[in-house]
Amino acid sequence: MAVYTDVSDEDIARFVAEYDIGNVISFKGIAEGVENTNFLLQTDQASFILTLYEKRVNPDDLPFYLGLMDHLSAKGLNCPTPIHGRDGVALRRLCGRPAAITSFLNGMSPRRIMPHHCTGLGAALAQLHTAGQDFEMYLGNALSVKGWRPLFESCRADANGVQPGLEKLIEDELVFLEANWPHQLPAGVIHADLFPDNVFFFPGKDDVSGLIDFYFACNDLLAYDIAICMNAWCFEPDNSFNVTKARNLLSSYGKVRALSDDELAALPILARGASLRFLLTRLYDWINTPKDALVTPKNPREYINKLRFHQRIDSAGAYGLGEE
Amino acid sequence: MAVYTDVSDEDIARFVAEYDIGNVISFKGIAEGVENTNFLLQTDQASFILTLYEKRVNPDDLPFYLGLMDHLSAKGLNCPTPIHGRDGVALRRLCGRPAAITSFLNGMSPRRIMPHHCTGLGAALAQLHTAGQDFEMYLGNALSVKGWRPLFESCRADANGVQPGLEKLIEDELVFLEANWPHQLPAGVIHADLFPDNVFFFPGKDDVSGLIDFYFACNDLLAYDIAICMNAWCFEPDNSFNVTKARNLLSSYGKVRALSDDELAALPILARGASLRFLLTRLYDWINTPKDALVTPKNPREYINKLRFHQRIDSAGAYGLGEE
Repeated sequence: MAVYTDVSDEDIARFVAEYDIGNVISFKGIAEGVENTNFLLQTDQASFILTLYEKRVNPDDLPFYLGLMDHLSAKGLNCPTPIHGRDGVALRRLCGRPAAITSFLNGMSPRRIMPHHCTGLGAALAQLHTAGQDFEMYLGNALSVKGWRPLFESCRADANGVQPGLEKLIEDELVFLEANWPHQLPAGVIHADLFPDNVFFFPGKDDVSGLIDFYFACNDLLAYDIAICMNAWCFEPDNSFNVTKARNLLSSYGKVRALSDDELAALPILARGASLRFLLTRLYDWINTPKDALVTPKNPREYINKLRFHQRIDSAGAYGLGEE
Repeated sequence: MAVYTDVSDEDIARFVAEYDIGNVISFKGIAEGVENTNFLLQTDQASFILTLYEKRVNPDDLPFYLGLMDHLSAKGLNCPTPIHGRDGVALRRLCGRPAAITSFLNGMSPRRIMPHHCTGLGAALAQLHTAGQDFEMYLGNALSVKGWRPLFESCRADANGVQPGLEKLIEDELVFLEANWPHQLPAGVIHADLFPDNVFFFPGKDDVSGLIDFYFACNDLLAYDIAICMNAWCFEPDNSFNVTKARNLLSSYGKVRALSDDELAALPILARGASLRFLLTRLYDWINTPKDALVTPKNPREYINKLRFHQRIDSAGAYGLGEE
């Protein structure tokens, strides 16, 4: 959520001249997107988003992300559409970084999550999963179960300094998840980072007006994406779980793409995995973010609480749906 | 340059309903403005800027700033125009803070300053000074010569830790400036913070398309504003002084508002004062900014170099103009 790269007015004018989108009239860094630098670019024709991909994004993965947005847009999903230059190329370079212009989406991220937002979210997530089924590229999830142990090893020495007992909590959870992860569930393209920041609504409306920030998208278990959303949308600021929100999310999802019994049964373990994944990356960032960084790291403790909550659940009934 | 206050989608919809500006369709935090939270607000009618005034702005001074922008806009200066609600009120409250919506200005801040930018800047600054002459409100400059010593006392104990000898450099300079400050020069409304971030141009054009961020504006010596600009625009990144840029700034200013001999003669001391003012505030911020702050403090050393440069100047001729 920061401007990591300063793009000069001359650079942007030169860059935009490669496209058929008119002349630049305004260009502002915006507080959107976690890992990249985003600008709101206004030309005499329309508004666009210019993204510069910073070091945490692997440039080799960018064709997947942009290809996915092209694919999903063509399927009618409201997501940023990559704008192609006059030469047909969408992925270019600017200020020494990979860069792309995408369409601008109207709507706003909800700050205070209401149950009706989770209804819209569930439908949009299922539409994304359905629309992604025939996308032909493949990108594995570096932050799924196999990636967690190396991440943990890189910061385990500092874990107890963040909270006493945290090293053992993570170690035990890792052993459990590595032994029990449900690899056989339906898979496909997932968003993998569908936090409220990345979902737009119009005020007072239930339907999602747009999904953004596909830069963690990958191939993984579809229900794992639901578990990530449940963590991001269904806990209150005091860490209590709101079962109404979870029920709305799950039932609305299920109306677009039916969840199998296996998927429902796996939700608690997927939610534990989703908790551990964000606990680990937040722990890593918490330990490794220097004082003068542009971005304030998020506290990992929130995800310790979520993990502990899901450890106590033994069936999806606790999430407001399921076999009970 | 940060979003200090999170405004919910519901809050903004309710707030905008107090105005005749249409319905919100998008709302994004932008990296603009040093002390306040700024959002780019798009309605189905136009684009606007919503500013939330954070703690460093004294709420008592806001009627001056907004009144000044109203006044300057009415005089034809391209600056943000406060938008008044249906009840006629421009200064309102949102999320517990004073807040105002202003018009959106096209154009972009120049990142790489070219001599032609200083030509446009000089004319715009003189237009601002001229247009402000009949503005009826008054606000003293809390960061002029009388304010520097208290600021210094609050951080002198840490000065040598930032650079050996800095405490003595500042103390000696303060004694000199307090004894020799040219209080009798022409005064009026000054911008007092006209850094490149606050000046918009269209790419390749000389003329300024807009001036923003009037939240340090005050009544002070007009030529002191020029000295602030000279420091902000006429030094290269390696701290060398670019006399072509200074000449462009001064001569272009002089074509709109003639500088008196006294003002020209005082430029070196005003430039020393302008250097000390930003050295002191940056020193204060450098020492007092906590690790988890949203904003990275600027290094005060740049202004040590500028101060030392101006200490060696004895007439405005060195700035490319004057009696030599």
